Amino acid sequence: MPLIDKSTCPVKSGSIYPGKLADEMTGRSSLRLGDAGGLTQFGANLVMLEPGALSSLRHYHMEQDEFVMVTQGTCTLVDDNGEHEMQVGDCAAFPAGDENGHHFINKTQAPAAFLVVGTRTETETAFYSDINMMVKMGPDGAAFTRKDGSALSTAELGEDS
Amino acid sequence: MPLIDKSTCPVKSGSIYPGKLADEMTGRSSLRLGDAGGLTQFGANLVMLEPGALSSLRHYHMEQDEFVMVTQGTCTLVDDNGEHEMQVGDCAAFPAGDENGHHFINKTQAPAAFLVVGTRTETETAFYSDINMMVKMGPDGAAFTRKDGSALSTAELGEDS
Repeated sequence: MPLIDKSTCPVKSGSIYPGKLADEMTGRSSLRLGDAGGLTQFGANLVMLEPGALSSLRHYHMEQDEFVMVTQGTCTLVDDNGEHEMQVGDCAAFPAGDENGHHFINKTQAPAAFLVVGTRTETETAFYSDINMMVKMGPDGAAFTRKDGSALSTAELGEDS
Repeated sequence: MPLIDKSTCPVKSGSIYPGKLADEMTGRSSLRLGDAGGLTQFGANLVMLEPGALSSLRHYHMEQDEFVMVTQGTCTLVDDNGEHEMQVGDCAAFPAGDENGHHFINKTQAPAAFLVVGTRTETETAFYSDINMMVKMGPDGAAFTRKDGSALSTAELGEDS
Protein backbone atom coordinates (compact mmCIF):
# COMPACT_ATOMS: atom_id res chain seq x y z
CA MET A 1 0.00 0.00 0.00
CA PRO A 2 1.71 3.21 -1.09
CA LEU A 3 -0.01 5.46 1.47
CA ILE A 4 2.04 5.89 4.63
CA ASP A 5 0.11 5.84 7.91
CA LYS A 6 2.00 8.28 10.12
CA SER A 7 -0.03 7.22 13.15
CA THR A 8 1.51 3.74 13.05
CA CYS A 9 5.00 4.84 11.95
CA PRO A 10 7.43 4.24 14.85
CA VAL A 11 8.78 7.41 16.48
CA LYS A 12 12.57 7.31 16.71
CA SER A 13 14.29 9.37 19.39
CA GLY A 14 17.69 9.34 21.04
CA SER A 15 21.03 9.64 19.26
CA ILE A 16 24.00 7.53 18.16
CA TYR A 17 26.43 10.31 19.14
CA PRO A 18 29.06 9.13 21.60
CA GLY A 19 29.27 10.17 25.23
CA LYS A 20 27.54 13.30 26.45
CA LEU A 21 27.20 14.57 22.88
CA ALA A 22 24.03 12.48 22.68
CA ASP A 23 22.47 14.69 25.36
CA GLU A 24 22.43 17.59 22.89
CA MET A 25 19.76 15.77 20.89
CA THR A 26 17.10 16.02 23.60
CA GLY A 27 13.78 17.13 22.11
CA ARG A 28 14.49 15.71 18.66
CA SER A 29 12.53 12.76 17.28
CA SER A 30 11.72 11.47 13.80
CA LEU A 31 9.38 9.33 11.73
CA ARG A 32 11.08 7.05 9.19
CA LEU A 33 8.50 7.61 6.46
CA GLY A 34 10.52 6.17 3.57
CA ASP A 35 11.38 3.04 5.53
CA ALA A 36 7.70 2.62 6.40
CA GLY A 37 6.90 2.78 2.69
CA GLY A 38 9.53 0.22 1.71
CA LEU A 39 12.05 2.62 0.16
CA THR A 40 15.74 1.68 0.22
CA GLN A 41 17.52 4.11 -2.13
CA PHE A 42 17.05 7.20 0.03
CA GLY A 43 15.79 8.00 3.50
CA ALA A 44 12.76 10.28 3.91
CA ASN A 45 12.28 11.25 7.54
CA LEU A 46 10.01 13.73 9.29
CA VAL A 47 12.18 15.34 11.96
CA MET A 48 10.29 16.91 14.86
CA LEU A 49 11.95 19.54 17.05
CA GLU A 50 10.58 20.59 20.40
CA PRO A 51 11.33 24.21 21.43
CA GLY A 52 15.10 24.58 21.78
CA ALA A 53 15.95 21.28 20.09
CA LEU A 54 18.68 20.73 17.47
CA SER A 55 18.33 18.49 14.40
CA SER A 56 21.93 17.26 14.75
CA LEU A 57 25.39 18.56 15.49
CA ARG A 58 26.43 20.84 12.61
CA HIS A 59 27.91 18.64 9.86
CA TYR A 60 28.36 17.95 6.17
CA HIS A 61 28.26 14.73 4.15
CA MET A 62 30.91 13.56 1.67
CA GLU A 63 28.88 11.02 -0.32
CA GLN A 64 25.19 11.76 0.25
CA ASP A 65 22.98 14.54 -1.11
CA GLU A 66 20.49 15.94 1.40
CA PHE A 67 17.27 17.93 0.89
CA VAL A 68 15.05 19.61 3.49
CA MET A 69 11.55 21.15 3.41
CA VAL A 70 10.08 22.75 6.54
CA THR A 71 6.60 21.35 7.27
CA GLN A 72 5.67 22.92 10.63
CA GLY A 73 6.60 26.05 12.55
CA THR A 74 9.88 27.88 12.09
CA CYS A 75 13.29 26.22 11.79
CA THR A 76 16.55 28.14 11.93
CA LEU A 77 19.16 26.82 9.52
CA VAL A 78 22.69 27.43 10.79
CA ASP A 79 25.53 27.20 8.29
CA ASP A 80 28.94 28.81 7.70
CA ASN A 81 27.18 32.03 6.68
CA GLY A 82 25.12 32.39 9.84
CA GLU A 83 21.48 31.85 10.71
CA HIS A 84 18.57 31.67 8.26
CA GLU A 85 14.95 31.47 9.42
CA MET A 86 12.88 29.00 7.42
CA GLN A 87 9.07 28.85 7.37
CA VAL A 88 6.69 26.10 6.21
CA GLY A 89 7.42 25.27 2.56
CA ASP A 90 10.93 26.71 2.58
CA CYS A 91 13.57 24.33 1.19
CA ALA A 92 17.32 23.84 1.40
CA ALA A 93 19.75 21.53 -0.37
CA PHE A 94 23.12 20.18 0.73
CA PRO A 95 25.05 18.55 -2.10
CA ALA A 96 27.49 15.77 -1.18
CA GLY A 97 30.97 17.13 -0.57
CA ASP A 98 29.90 20.74 -0.01
CA GLU A 99 31.86 21.66 3.11
CA ASN A 100 29.34 24.23 4.34
CA GLY A 101 28.12 22.37 7.42
CA HIS A 102 24.53 22.74 8.56
CA HIS A 103 21.99 21.94 11.21
CA PHE A 104 18.56 23.20 12.26
CA ILE A 105 17.47 24.69 15.58
CA ASN A 106 13.96 25.32 16.80
CA LYS A 107 14.40 28.76 18.38
CA THR A 108 10.65 29.24 18.91
CA GLN A 109 8.32 28.27 21.74
CA ALA A 110 6.21 26.01 19.48
CA PRO A 111 6.94 22.61 17.90
CA ALA A 112 8.64 22.65 14.51
CA ALA A 113 9.26 19.93 11.92
CA PHE A 114 10.88 19.32 8.57
CA LEU A 115 11.06 16.58 5.97
CA VAL A 116 14.62 15.49 5.24
CA VAL A 117 15.67 13.28 2.34
CA GLY A 118 19.16 11.79 2.12
CA THR A 119 20.68 9.34 -0.29
CA ARG A 120 21.48 5.87 1.06
CA THR A 121 25.03 4.76 0.29
CA GLU A 122 27.03 1.72 1.45
CA THR A 123 29.60 3.94 3.09
CA GLU A 124 29.58 7.55 4.22
CA THR A 125 31.87 10.03 5.90
CA ALA A 126 30.53 13.11 7.64
CA PHE A 127 32.51 15.89 9.30
CA TYR A 128 31.29 17.99 12.22
CA SER A 129 31.83 21.70 11.70
CA ASP A 130 32.13 22.99 15.25
CA ILE A 131 34.05 20.18 16.97
CA ASN A 132 37.01 17.96 16.04
CA MET A 133 34.95 14.91 15.09
CA MET A 134 34.06 12.85 12.05
CA VAL A 135 32.00 9.71 11.55
CA LYS A 136 32.59 6.89 9.10
CA MET A 137 29.51 4.81 8.40
CA GLY A 138 29.67 1.36 6.84
CA PRO A 139 28.13 -2.11 6.91
CA ASP A 140 29.47 -2.64 10.44
CA GLY A 141 28.08 0.59 11.90
CA ALA A 142 29.40 4.02 12.76
CA ALA A 143 32.91 4.98 13.94
CA PHE A 144 33.25 8.39 15.60
CA THR A 145 36.82 9.73 15.79
CA ARG A 146 38.74 12.97 15.60
CA LYS A 147 39.10 14.30 12.05
CA ASP A 148 42.59 12.75 11.84
CA GLY A 149 41.18 9.34 12.75
CA SER A 150 42.52 9.29 16.31
CA ALA A 151 40.39 8.45 19.31
CA LEU A 152 38.20 11.02 21.01
CA SER A 153 39.27 11.71 24.58
CA THR A 154 36.90 11.36 27.48
CA ALA A 155 37.12 15.15 27.88
CA GLU A 156 36.03 15.62 24.27
CA LEU A 157 33.12 13.28 24.92
CA GLY A 158 32.12 15.30 27.98
CA GLU A 159 32.63 12.33 30.30
CA ASP A 160 34.41 12.29 33.63
CA SER A 161 37.74 10.55 33.18
CA MET B 1 23.94 28.83 -0.64
CA PRO B 2 21.85 25.97 0.71
CA LEU B 3 18.56 27.94 0.84
CA ILE B 4 16.49 27.51 -2.31
CA ASP B 5 14.76 30.64 -3.60
CA LYS B 6 11.51 29.34 -5.07
CA SER B 7 10.77 32.74 -6.60
CA THR B 8 13.75 32.42 -8.96
CA CYS B 9 13.42 28.67 -9.55
CA PRO B 10 12.35 28.13 -13.20
CA VAL B 11 8.80 26.80 -13.63
CA LYS B 12 8.76 23.75 -15.89
CA SER B 13 5.57 22.92 -17.78
CA GLY B 14 4.72 20.83 -20.81
CA SER B 15 5.44 17.11 -21.22
CA ILE B 16 7.80 14.75 -23.00
CA TYR B 17 4.94 12.33 -23.74
CA PRO B 18 4.60 11.58 -27.47
CA GLY B 19 1.75 12.77 -29.67
CA LYS B 20 -1.52 13.87 -28.16
CA LEU B 21 -0.67 12.15 -24.87
CA ALA B 22 1.19 15.34 -23.97
CA ASP B 23 -2.11 17.22 -24.01
CA GLU B 24 -3.22 15.28 -20.93
CA MET B 25 -0.59 17.14 -18.89
CA THR B 26 -2.28 20.54 -19.25
CA GLY B 27 -2.42 22.33 -15.90
CA ARG B 28 0.63 20.57 -14.48
CA SER B 29 3.87 22.43 -13.79
CA SER B 30 6.83 21.92 -11.49
CA LEU B 31 9.74 23.56 -9.74
CA ARG B 32 13.02 21.66 -9.88
CA LEU B 33 14.04 22.41 -6.30
CA GLY B 34 16.80 19.82 -6.02
CA ASP B 35 18.39 20.90 -9.29
CA ALA B 36 18.27 24.53 -8.11
CA GLY B 37 20.14 23.46 -4.98
CA GLY B 38 22.83 21.55 -6.88
CA LEU B 39 21.65 18.02 -6.05
CA THR B 40 22.41 15.22 -8.52
CA GLN B 41 21.63 11.95 -6.71
CA PHE B 42 17.86 12.42 -6.57
CA GLY B 43 15.31 14.82 -7.98
CA ALA B 44 13.18 16.88 -5.59
CA ASN B 45 10.41 18.65 -7.46
CA LEU B 46 7.38 20.65 -6.34
CA VAL B 47 4.57 19.56 -8.66
CA MET B 48 1.68 22.03 -8.99
CA LEU B 49 -1.71 20.86 -10.23
CA GLU B 50 -4.42 23.22 -11.37
CA PRO B 51 -8.00 22.00 -10.86
CA GLY B 52 -8.51 18.89 -12.99
CA ALA B 53 -4.82 18.37 -13.76
CA LEU B 54 -2.94 15.04 -13.63
CA SER B 55 0.59 14.59 -12.29
CA SER B 56 1.43 12.07 -15.03
CA LEU B 57 -0.05 9.12 -16.85
CA ARG B 58 -0.40 6.28 -14.32
CA HIS B 59 2.93 4.42 -14.19
CA TYR B 60 5.50 2.56 -12.13
CA HIS B 61 9.30 2.65 -12.10
CA MET B 62 11.61 -0.35 -12.34
CA GLU B 63 14.84 1.20 -10.98
CA GLN B 64 13.91 4.32 -9.06
CA ASP B 65 12.31 4.76 -5.64
CA GLU B 66 9.77 7.60 -5.43
CA PHE B 67 8.37 9.49 -2.42
CA VAL B 68 5.55 12.05 -2.29
CA MET B 69 4.31 14.51 0.35
CA VAL B 70 1.27 16.69 -0.33
CA THR B 71 2.06 20.36 0.40
CA GLN B 72 -1.08 22.23 -0.75
CA GLY B 73 -4.76 21.40 -1.19
CA THR B 74 -6.05 17.89 -1.81
CA CYS B 75 -4.48 15.36 -4.21
CA THR B 76 -6.18 12.13 -5.20
CA LEU B 77 -3.77 9.22 -5.51
CA VAL B 78 -4.97 6.66 -8.04
CA ASP B 79 -3.43 3.20 -7.92
CA ASP B 80 -4.48 -0.41 -8.62
CA ASN B 81 -6.63 -0.32 -5.47
CA GLY B 82 -8.65 2.74 -6.43
CA GLU B 83 -8.64 6.35 -5.31
CA HIS B 84 -7.16 7.74 -2.08
CA GLU B 85 -7.63 11.36 -1.04
CA MET B 86 -4.46 12.92 0.38
CA GLN B 87 -4.31 16.14 2.41
CA VAL B 88 -1.37 18.40 3.27
CA GLY B 89 1.30 16.39 5.09
CA ASP B 90 0.08 13.02 3.81
CA CYS B 91 2.83 10.87 2.29
CA ALA B 92 3.12 7.94 -0.12
CA ALA B 93 6.04 5.77 -1.22
CA PHE B 94 6.56 3.84 -4.44
CA PRO B 95 9.48 1.40 -4.23
CA ALA B 96 11.31 0.58 -7.46
CA GLY B 97 9.84 -2.47 -9.15
CA ASP B 98 6.49 -2.37 -7.33
CA GLU B 99 4.03 -2.85 -10.19
CA ASN B 100 1.20 -0.94 -8.52
CA GLY B 101 1.09 2.04 -10.90
CA HIS B 102 0.17 5.47 -9.58
CA HIS B 103 -0.58 9.04 -10.44
CA PHE B 104 -2.21 12.03 -8.75
CA ILE B 105 -5.25 14.04 -9.84
CA ASN B 106 -6.45 17.36 -8.52
CA LYS B 107 -10.19 16.70 -8.32
CA THR B 108 -10.87 19.96 -6.45
CA GLN B 109 -11.59 23.50 -7.62
CA ALA B 110 -8.46 24.88 -5.91
CA PRO B 111 -4.76 24.56 -6.72
CA ALA B 112 -2.95 21.56 -5.23
CA ALA B 113 0.73 20.67 -4.96
CA PHE B 114 3.07 17.95 -3.76
CA LEU B 115 6.77 17.42 -3.25
CA VAL B 116 8.07 14.40 -5.17
CA VAL B 117 11.50 12.84 -4.69
CA GLY B 118 12.86 10.26 -7.11
CA THR B 119 16.25 8.59 -7.34
CA ARG B 120 18.43 9.55 -10.29
CA THR B 121 19.78 6.53 -12.18
CA GLU B 122 21.71 6.28 -15.46
CA THR B 123 18.97 4.21 -17.01
CA GLU B 124 15.32 3.69 -16.15
CA THR B 125 12.33 1.79 -17.46
CA ALA B 126 8.78 2.82 -16.55
CA PHE B 127 5.55 1.09 -17.53
CA TYR B 128 2.20 2.84 -17.97
CA SER B 129 -0.64 1.06 -16.22
CA ASP B 130 -3.65 2.06 -18.32
CA ILE B 131 -2.21 2.05 -21.85
CA ASN B 132 0.16 -0.21 -23.80
CA MET B 133 3.25 1.98 -23.39
CA MET B 134 6.61 1.94 -21.70
CA VAL B 135 9.54 4.35 -21.66
CA LYS B 136 13.23 3.56 -21.52
CA MET B 137 15.37 6.46 -20.31
CA GLY B 138 19.11 6.61 -20.86
CA PRO B 139 21.98 8.95 -21.63
CA ASP B 140 20.55 9.60 -25.10
CA GLY B 141 17.04 10.48 -23.93
CA ALA B 142 13.67 8.75 -23.69
CA ALA B 143 12.23 6.07 -26.00
CA PHE B 144 8.45 5.55 -25.79
CA THR B 145 7.23 2.24 -27.26
CA ARG B 146 4.61 -0.41 -26.68
CA LYS B 147 5.40 -2.73 -23.76
CA ASP B 148 6.80 -5.31 -26.24
CA GLY B 149 9.19 -2.69 -27.65
CA SER B 150 7.30 -2.19 -30.91
CA ALA B 151 6.40 1.23 -32.27
CA LEU B 152 3.33 3.09 -31.11
CA SER B 153 0.81 3.62 -33.91
CA THR B 154 -0.46 7.05 -34.85
CA ALA B 155 -3.86 5.94 -33.52
CA GLU B 156 -2.30 5.05 -30.16
CA LEU B 157 -0.68 8.48 -30.12
CA GLY B 158 -4.04 10.14 -30.81
CA GLU B 159 -2.79 11.63 -34.06
CA ASP B 160 -4.58 11.67 -37.40
CA SER B 161 -2.88 9.17 -39.67
